Amino acid sequence: MLSFESDYTVGAHERILNRMQEMNLVQQKGYGGDGICESAKEKIRKACECEEAQIHFLVGGTQANSIVIGACLKRYEGVVAAQTGHVSVHEAGAIEYTGHKVLEIPGHDGKIDADELAGYLKTFWEDGSHEHMVFPGMVYISHPTEYGTLYSLKELQKISEVCKSYDIPLYLDGARLGYGLMSRDTDVTLPDIARCCDIFYIGGTKVGALFGEAVVFTKKNMPKYFMTMVKQQGGLLAKGWLLGLQFDTLFTDNLYYEIGKNAIDMAELVKEEFRKKGYEFFIDSPTNQQFFVMENDAMERLRSKVAFSLWEPYDENHTIVRFVTSWATKKEDIEELCRLL
Amino acid sequence: MLSFESDYTVGAHERILNRMQEMNLVQQKGYGGDGICESAKEKIRKACECEEAQIHFLVGGTQANSIVIGACLKRYEGVVAAQTGHVSVHEAGAIEYTGHKVLEIPGHDGKIDADELAGYLKTFWEDGSHEHMVFPGMVYISHPTEYGTLYSLKELQKISEVCKSYDIPLYLDGARLGYGLMSRDTDVTLPDIARCCDIFYIGGTKVGALFGEAVVFTKKNMPKYFMTMVKQQGGLLAKGWLLGLQFDTLFTDNLYYEIGKNAIDMAELVKEEFRKKGYEFFIDSPTNQQFFVMENDAMERLRSKVAFSLWEPYDENHTIVRFVTSWATKKEDIEELCRLL
Amino acid sequence: MLSFESDYTVGAHERILNRMQEMNLVQQKGYGGDGICESAKEKIRKACECEEAQIHFLVGGTQANSIVIGACLKRYEGVVAAQTGHVSVHEAGAIEYTGHKVLEIPGHDGKIDADELAGYLKTFWEDGSHEHMVFPGMVYISHPTEYGTLYSLKELQKISEVCKSYDIPLYLDGARLGYGLMSRDTDVTLPDIARCCDIFYIGGTKVGALFGEAVVFTKKNMPKYFMTMVKQQGGLLAKGWLLGLQFDTLFTDNLYYEIGKNAIDMAELVKEEFRKKGYEFFIDSPTNQQFFVMENDAMERLRSKVAFSLWEPYDENHTIVRFVTSWATKKEDIEELCRLL
Amino acid sequence: MLSFESDYTVGAHERILNRMQEMNLVQQKGYGGDGICESAKEKIRKACECEEAQIHFLVGGTQANSIVIGACLKRYEGVVAAQTGHVSVHEAGAIEYTGHKVLEIPGHDGKIDADELAGYLKTFWEDGSHEHMVFPGMVYISHPTEYGTLYSLKELQKISEVCKSYDIPLYLDGARLGYGLMSRDTDVTLPDIARCCDIFYIGGTKVGALFGEAVVFTKKNMPKYFMTMVKQQGGLLAKGWLLGLQFDTLFTDNLYYEIGKNAIDMAELVKEEFRKKGYEFFIDSPTNQQFFVMENDAMERLRSKVAFSLWEPYDENHTIVRFVTSWATKKEDIEELCRLL
Repeated sequence: MLSFESDYTVGAHERILNRMQEMNLVQQKGYGGDGICESAKEKIRKACECEEAQIHFLVGGTQANSIVIGACLKRYEGVVAAQTGHVSVHEAGAIEYTGHKVLEIPGHDGKIDADELAGYLKTFWEDGSHEHMVFPGMVYISHPTEYGTLYSLKELQKISEVCKSYDIPLYLDGARLGYGLMSRDTDVTLPDIARCCDIFYIGGTKVGALFGEAVVFTKKNMPKYFMTMVKQQGGLLAKGWLLGLQFDTLFTDNLYYEIGKNAIDMAELVKEEFRKKGYEFFIDSPTNQQFFVMENDAMERLRSKVAFSLWEPYDENHTIVRFVTSWATKKEDIEELCRLL
Repeated sequence: MLSFESDYTVGAHERILNRMQEMNLVQQKGYGGDGICESAKEKIRKACECEEAQIHFLVGGTQANSIVIGACLKRYEGVVAAQTGHVSVHEAGAIEYTGHKVLEIPGHDGKIDADELAGYLKTFWEDGSHEHMVFPGMVYISHPTEYGTLYSLKELQKISEVCKSYDIPLYLDGARLGYGLMSRDTDVTLPDIARCCDIFYIGGTKVGALFGEAVVFTKKNMPKYFMTMVKQQGGLLAKGWLLGLQFDTLFTDNLYYEIGKNAIDMAELVKEEFRKKGYEFFIDSPTNQQFFVMENDAMERLRSKVAFSLWEPYDENHTIVRFVTSWATKKEDIEELCRLL
Repeated sequence: MLSFESDYTVGAHERILNRMQEMNLVQQKGYGGDGICESAKEKIRKACECEEAQIHFLVGGTQANSIVIGACLKRYEGVVAAQTGHVSVHEAGAIEYTGHKVLEIPGHDGKIDADELAGYLKTFWEDGSHEHMVFPGMVYISHPTEYGTLYSLKELQKISEVCKSYDIPLYLDGARLGYGLMSRDTDVTLPDIARCCDIFYIGGTKVGALFGEAVVFTKKNMPKYFMTMVKQQGGLLAKGWLLGLQFDTLFTDNLYYEIGKNAIDMAELVKEEFRKKGYEFFIDSPTNQQFFVMENDAMERLRSKVAFSLWEPYDENHTIVRFVTSWATKKEDIEELCRLL
Repeated sequence: MLSFESDYTVGAHERILNRMQEMNLVQQKGYGGDGICESAKEKIRKACECEEAQIHFLVGGTQANSIVIGACLKRYEGVVAAQTGHVSVHEAGAIEYTGHKVLEIPGHDGKIDADELAGYLKTFWEDGSHEHMVFPGMVYISHPTEYGTLYSLKELQKISEVCKSYDIPLYLDGARLGYGLMSRDTDVTLPDIARCCDIFYIGGTKVGALFGEAVVFTKKNMPKYFMTMVKQQGGLLAKGWLLGLQFDTLFTDNLYYEIGKNAIDMAELVKEEFRKKGYEFFIDSPTNQQFFVMENDAMERLRSKVAFSLWEPYDENHTIVRFVTSWATKKEDIEELCRLL
């Protein structure tokens, strides 16, 4: 069935699978100590224009978030995030399972506001009883956010400055980073992210890989014995070279950007079509996740032929629905969708 | 110095200290397996009109909250609480340290609303991705709240019904319960609380004891091997009879109520005086915590002579201040305060 | 370089990679809710002769151990294991990170003894202060063990009976199960394991898959909301069908057994060769891990041409070394090794 | 009934209770920020001859162990202890609940051996796969041990040197420290302990106080925001001055030593009597815990008149029993015991 349900419903870009075939029987060191991982890291450092970046490959997004946050925070610290952040809502309490609180501040279409963040931090430190409270020890943002929105470079820099002034690291969840970087409405590049953030991850699972996220520590700030903590949280892949191989391929010949662009191009076609048909846009998203308001009967008719997500009720007769394109979406998929709308 | 800073700044009611002297050299079984604890439990069961109540004495409030919540929740559950709840804000992440999320819902002068709670629970269960979320596994309320406010019996019953309909326990933090029960504006009794709540604790630390909170499980719902979990969290007192003795004394001859009433009487005198002097009341509190708006210069002058808490800024020139009476406050203290105002 | 370092140094059996290619662009439900996983589960149920088995696929061994143990134990329980068990020694404290103690009992060439286990459990329950101790809540064994040894069916049944008599589940770590099942010296079959154990996992990472372990709950005992706890520990794979596909392939046309047999055949050739050359066997292992005593100078010479593991010092001039064969080892590899020895 | 069951079966030294009466209604700052705590800390610094000691008062022993260990260890570290150590066996998994492993090494009558410790640490660091293991991050000893035995100064210094050479802190559990210091067979003083150990606690609960343990950090090594972590683990006492008052009293006019000596004098009388009566000593303990081998029938007869502990079975007809004296044991108690033996 035609599906716009999410960007993780099919496998990997063919170049990745082909290379996996090629390398399948070559002996590799275990746990990521192999040469392919080294090559991939070097390519990512170059793409980030950050020669001192330390990189560790992990399998999935929730795993990356809980390992990074669990390993970097001090015992008495929590992570500040938007109320709608993935770590706040959709990770089954993975952060709390590591013993740390998610300190929620308002989200605006998924984004936090630098001034509100500054206000929160100021209030915390001025509170006479803050030693009885959870210390803000990291700031988490997602880019694109869970609503497909993006920070502008200016917004990102401002948040980064607030973090620096309070000496806490800024961590960016880039599960869909490839789509954010290729949006037609962004001025944020990968080197910008490496400069603004202390830690971020480049999403592979949703952007062309079978699985995998590349965690990047940009300021020589990878915690000591990070690999041991990865192991402790059950995240160390025996055949780590499988992760290296995927990122090495994605960062060869601009593949990561190229396939990111495809998703954006397809999303723009979807938007155009929904606009033409007169649908209300729930959020103005510049990336591969698009949210529309759909009349319930029409929605049910469409669902029998196309897969997409029901986000939340809008009113009694309407629902907010989500359509997602990906690196693998084809022009014909859009054309078929148009016929069905 | 004259102090209205809090209700835990002095020791214990003299009857408690006297009895401690009397029993000091009597041999007792360790860890609460003694006869005094048994006697105290029986008196609490009577006072609660709940013959099947299971009771465990703990040392302090945060300890009680983290042990009860940590022991009762399932691995995938969190506790629902007001954003202003003590467990949400002022326990240094003690709940998260046990691996569980505090699921925050709006607080209204410290109270949660039964309809909002029902709405939250309904939305959770209807959300298609709720298996990726933290399950609401308990509801936490405080009575009196952190703002001195109280639930009416009707409100409490309604919250209790919502909990029952979703089959999750209602837990009441009664750190200042004695003051709530003796408020002039309450229709809630101790037996009402035992009926409406699945678990609650009767505060001793702030109401006449040196230390100690009596955790009451009202529905034969004390978790199996609860004592082992108390030990595991470092909360098992070797000389448990010290806790039993204090509650046995407080629940003899209505002492708990009597000293609760004193704090209320003193609080009413404070209110009268502030009203006379024309102060704005920040919250209309019917218990022993009173919140007023005070002009900053006047506040500074007063602080040199009386201890009280600065709650939060009100505007540029005013601050919200908190005055707390207790079981130990004397009429002369109020008179002196009046002279200084 | 010729390598006998471990059984996870190359990719996957070609049938797996081929099928991955075939299915690469077919839309699948996320998180294991797809048809390929269902098919794989059904095949495993058949192979186990356990129609009621509940199965969940995970990515790696430490992940499987920490998720299964963390999800199944009660708060006050620990897991009993041999002092040499993988969970005791080589998982960086992953079990303790979930809050649970590994209760160590003696290991005999990696195996626990049913009588010693029974003695341990009896002593625990008879100890007057056992409520101050960690309750034994599960028994962990590995088969093959970390030393390549195997339980006989009788031994396994006896351990199973001890567990049943104390009403605690028996959990078997089958990271290398395929090699154990195909050993020439075993009378234990997969259905035997399903009958004797309450939970076990069938290892894929080391037996023909790119990655993946199939956790099998044999007694309708999968914990409620297990998937949520998997997510909470960061172990939920977005493209769960990748795991299903690998196990579906391994359990089609006896592939799992066939490739298991290859490793055993190759190991027997290795043993024969070392025996001929007069090497001392450190342990009499009937599976794919072989431990020999090697003179240090000879060892260094050999290491320049073949990769293998240094296990531990034997005496001043000798070292215990480990040679591991796998599903991918070829006869020519052994022949080359023979020439180099 | 006459009791030698333990050293925590009665209340506190009368000077403590009297002072509690005196100070009962004096206003104090909360959470240990009061002047009595300051005075007590100063006296302890003097007694330890360690002017830079940082001190925090906690309520009980398991609480002290789990808070100190939980706050000082890094994420990937565990604490090395004797297999018989209190943290290993009798704290219901409190250390593991904080996420850390207890790394057990052999105990010899409760003591660890410096050479064995050094061997353990050497092996760990030389192990090629130690990044997959729990790092030894602290050494825990008890003095007196759980068997009443003591380290000599030389033994203590040697352990201390091993710890220093591996740069890990030495932590001493002094639940019964007062009895150890006053043993007739010790050459270890409180200043020796402060010099040899990085952290230790002076036990109050078992040595004259109602409750309370004074944790001493001797090398300016109290973790940052330690109080917040104490709160997070539920160990922060609202009326912290109650702890300060008890230690201030114990360290005034040598009370702590004086009452320690009483327990030792009484224990020596007990030993003399058992020796005279021909009982076998299970352990040669120089402190207030004495272990004898008793014939089972005789034991049962005695138990009807005196309380004491059954430690463990010795053989079919004999049991190891424990008799404990304390600060509160009177000469008449011993005389009555003699009559009953």
